[in-house]
Parts: sequence; structure tokens; C-alpha cells
Amino acid sequence: MIDAKDYLKKMSAELDGPIKSYIGDEEPKKLMDASKQYPYAGGKRMRPAMAVACCGAVGGDKSKAVPLAVAVEYIHNFTLIHDDLMDGDKVRRGMPTIHVGYGEPTAILAGDALFAKAFQIICDLDVPAERMRDALRYISQAVWDLARGQQMDVNNEGQLVTEDVYIETIKLKTSVLFAAAAAGGAIVGGADEKTVRAINEYAIELGLGFQMFDDYLGIAGDPSKTGKSVGNDIRKGKCTCMVIHALNNIKDPAELEEFKSVLGNLDATDEQCARAKDIMEKAGSIEYGLNLARQKVDIAKSKIAFLPETEEKEFMLALADYSINREV
Amino acid sequence: MIDAKDYLKKMSAELDGPIKSYIGDEEPKKLMDASKQYPYAGGKRMRPAMAVACCGAVGGDKSKAVPLAVAVEYIHNFTLIHDDLMDGDKVRRGMPTIHVGYGEPTAILAGDALFAKAFQIICDLDVPAERMRDALRYISQAVWDLARGQQMDVNNEGQLVTEDVYIETIKLKTSVLFAAAAAGGAIVGGADEKTVRAINEYAIELGLGFQMFDDYLGIAGDPSKTGKSVGNDIRKGKCTCMVIHALNNIKDPAELEEFKSVLGNLDATDEQCARAKDIMEKAGSIEYGLNLARQKVDIAKSKIAFLPETEEKEFMLALADYSINREV
Repeated sequence: MIDAKDYLKKMSAELDGPIKSYIGDEEPKKLMDASKQYPYAGGKRMRPAMAVACCGAVGGDKSKAVPLAVAVEYIHNFTLIHDDLMDGDKVRRGMPTIHVGYGEPTAILAGDALFAKAFQIICDLDVPAERMRDALRYISQAVWDLARGQQMDVNNEGQLVTEDVYIETIKLKTSVLFAAAAAGGAIVGGADEKTVRAINEYAIELGLGFQMFDDYLGIAGDPSKTGKSVGNDIRKGKCTCMVIHALNNIKDPAELEEFKSVLGNLDATDEQCARAKDIMEKAGSIEYGLNLARQKVDIAKSKIAFLPETEEKEFMLALADYSINREV
Repeated sequence: MIDAKDYLKKMSAELDGPIKSYIGDEEPKKLMDASKQYPYAGGKRMRPAMAVACCGAVGGDKSKAVPLAVAVEYIHNFTLIHDDLMDGDKVRRGMPTIHVGYGEPTAILAGDALFAKAFQIICDLDVPAERMRDALRYISQAVWDLARGQQMDVNNEGQLVTEDVYIETIKLKTSVLFAAAAAGGAIVGGADEKTVRAINEYAIELGLGFQMFDDYLGIAGDPSKTGKSVGNDIRKGKCTCMVIHALNNIKDPAELEEFKSVLGNLDATDEQCARAKDIMEKAGSIEYGLNLARQKVDIAKSKIAFLPETEEKEFMLALADYSINREV
């Protein structure tokens, strides 16, 4: 049985060289440095690993998916740079965010530059132009959707939305790029349309499970491992599936009142946040969120059951499980 | 003899429908509205007109270049949105800029969304995939270069750079997108590689002349027509070819001192700016800048002399002349 974390680490090490090879010593240096910082700093590399694995899982030459994997990682990092600026986040991967380190104009431009570079890389994929075009369709649609999802996220801030709206938001913000990486890898690997679609759906569901579990970690994770203060999402009033469930299922009016008074209250104490968590727990909301994530991952795995048994398929299944069984 | 301005107006009217047809009623509405504002508001439409004309000039079916023209216009507008945010500009085309009207996060996202939409449109060009790939190479390289050029512009602010650095900056900031539009149009029109390269070079030189003449208008234009205060570029210390020439060619030390004291002085009065302009005039710097622009346009026209005589070629030549013979 493949250990997804170990396998990811191995793939990440293999992808490190390519990820560092596409931005050269052009002028102006400041823009190059700013553009390199996030992709060079590491991360889980789940998206690029997925692109390469999906290529292998359909019997393709995995080396041909490596540039696509790099492009997807650049796109992911472009969105991180712009999101950090919008959210006013100061630190990522232990370093100052780009707008803090280089100023806002350079942060905007570094994101734009990574975006452009991603498409330059895709142009040069070593596959027939028709296949390149098909992969590009998924990727460019994903970036359009990412912008929509981030705007929804901005709009949702401090709002209580329905579960459907929440799921649509995380689908656009998280799943579509996973899915473009997966579908793109399968296309580069020579898969037929039906297989590409199935792999795309696998990654959509995996992405939903991944993000729901991220929300779960935000409230029930070990802060010493996640690096996130447990009360943070509650103080910010982040509207997750768990919070939506809680608001609809807390039976005791006094507890509901108490929960509402803590949610979105930036001055809430750690004790108040812990109480809010207890109330959610009692209402079954945390279990509910976790179960929803598990359901999505089950669906994800079912979508690729038809693929032939390969190491890459095994990794794809393990990655789905890993996305809801991790400490960070 | 074709009148470039009239011809542009006619083409602009024809392109208006397509330009307004690619962004639908998706959610979230705020992002759609913000993304539409600039492309819908008009402008000279020089870039899209060039894409269509270059397609026709090589004997291609011009209707096939229309989506490419729209994509280029979206890319141009994406850079305007991000540039306006970086530069803190408040008004464009008589309306509040996107970050003023919709807030900074939405301005960043609207730019990203237009960028993504442009590539979605290019994916679907009605040409063989190999041609689409060739056009995409020019376009994605242009966006990478645009980010570099804008970063150089940010870096140059308040600096005195050499004429070479200045020309490299405006080449990246202005010419490369003109050139990608032109080359892309020729590719869609079925041109061979040598013709594409020549048309690309034509647009590079035209773009340089266009931007140099823009700088000229900024100092010698009629403010009632350009809408720009004549002293603005001087107060900002904008380092144009004219300013670089002046700093190297003002003979009288007292005049040089006076010129330097006004350049980049945000508090300079209109009289002081007028004096600075007179000193530049006396040093031959304004004439120098204008001549440089004319030289670029002459080179531009020479690059496409070999094309067969068509209405589109005539427009391309007229457009080159227009870029240095306009009031606004």
C-alpha cells in the first residue's frame, strides 16, 4: 500500500528541479526574485504530483506531464500571491508574503508574471497541438473559475451563506485547479475524453474533501502542527459547512445565542472560542463536516475505480485518503 | 488614401459587439461588472484593429481574427486595471477606475479574470491547433514581457535612466502587445513565418513611435484635447527620451540647474513647468523626441513594404502615421 505522504515527498523532490528551471535571470531582478519565492519555497506539491500521476495512470509518458505540472504549480502560486495581498496576510511558508517583502505593485506583477509563464510553458508541451489545446482549455477555464471563487470568498466574508453557496465557492477556489491538473495530466498522457472527464471529476471531489478537511483542521486540528490558532476561523466568522450546520442545529436557544456572539467576534477569548467549539461538537456539527469530507473522498475514489491497477492509480487513491487524514 | 482615424472608428464599431459578447451573466455579478467596465467603455481599439488588419493583409479570413482581437483587447484592459491600481489613478475614460469603484481585491481579480478569459478565447480560435499554438506563443510571451515592463516602469520612477533603458521599458510596456496582436493576426491569417516576423517587427517599431509620441503629447500637446495637464509629466519626473536628451544637452549651467529643480518637483507651479518646457525646447529636446518617434514609424512602415497592396496594408501604413499624428 502506497503511503501518500512519502510518495508526495518523493515526487516533490523530483519536481523541484523543473519548478526551479523556468524563471531565469531576466530583468528586472526584483520581479524575478518575487516571482520565484513561493514556487521555490516548497509546499505539498499536490497539484503537480496529481498532474504527473494522472498522466502515468492512463499509460502516458510521465516526463511529458512535468512541464504541465510546473505550470499548474505556478498558477497555484500566482493565486497565493494575489490572495495574500487581498487578505493582508503577512507570512507564508515562514517568509514575508510577496507584498510585504517587495511591495504591492511587485506582488501584483509577480502574480501576473507567473500566470503568463504558466501559459508559455503549456504552449511548449511536447504533445500534438490538439492535445495542448485540450489541456489549455481546462487550465484557462480553471483560472477564470479561481477568480470567480476568490471573489465569492471576498463577498461571503462575514456573511452566512447556504451550504450550496459554500460548496460552490470552495469548488471554484480549490477543486477546479486540482481538476485541471488531473485532467491536463490525463490529456498529456493520451487519455480518451471519457477517461479525462472521470479523472476531472475525481479531482473535483477530492478538492472538495481536501478543503472541507482543511476547515475541520482549522477548528479541531492540533495548533502545534497546523500552525493555526484554533479560534481563528471562529473569530473571523469563516462560514464553513460546520458553522452552517451548527447555526441550523443548535437546539438550546441560550447556546445558539452564545455561539452567535462568539462567531465573527475578533475580540473573542480563547475560552469563548473553546466554548463555541464545544457547542458545535454537541450539535454534531464537527462530525457533520468531517463526514461530508469523507463522502466527497469516497465519491472521488469511485470515479477512478475503472482505471487499470497501476502504482499511479494507487497513489491517486491514497492521495484522496490523505487529503482527509493529515495533521497539516 | 485611407484615413486611419475613420477606419479605426469603423473597425471599432464592428468589434464592439464581439468585445461585449464573451463575458456573460455568471456569478459573482460584482466581478463580471468590474471585468466588463474597461473593455465595454471603448478606447482607440488600436490593438484589436491591428490583429484583424494584419490577418487581412496576409490574405486571411478576417472574421477568424476577431476572437483573437477581443482577447488582445481583454489583455490590454487587464493590464490597465492592474496598472491603475498600482499607480493609484482614480479616473479612466471618464469613470472611476476599478479599484476605486469596486475595491482593490475586485480590481486584482477583475484583471486576473480578463487575462484568463483572453486565453479561453484563444483556445477556441477557429484555426488549426498548430496555428493557435503559434499565436498563443506570441501572446503569452507578451504578457510575461508586459509584467517585466511595468516592473521596470515602477523601478524607473524618479530615476534618471539611459535612453536604452527607457526604450527597452516602453518596448515591453507598449510594443510587445501591439506586436503580439499583429503577429497573432498574421498567424491566424495563414502567413508564413517570415511574414509573421516582419509584421511583428512592424508593430514593435510602431509601438515605440506611438509611446514616444504619447510622451511628446504629454509635454507639447493641447491639454484641452489630451485631457492631461502639460506640467504633469515634468512634475512626476517622468524620464522620457526628451528629458534624457535635455539633461545631456542643456548648455547653460543655470538653465540646467533650473530644469533639474522643476523636474520631479510635485509642487512646481504651471509657470515653472512652462519654463522647463522652454528650456527643453531651446536644447532641441522636444524636437529630438519627436524625430525619434518619426524614425521608429519610418522603420515600421519599411518592414511591411513587401506586402501586396491591399486595403489592410494601406490601413497598417496609415495607422503607423496616425500614431505620431494625433491630438489625443
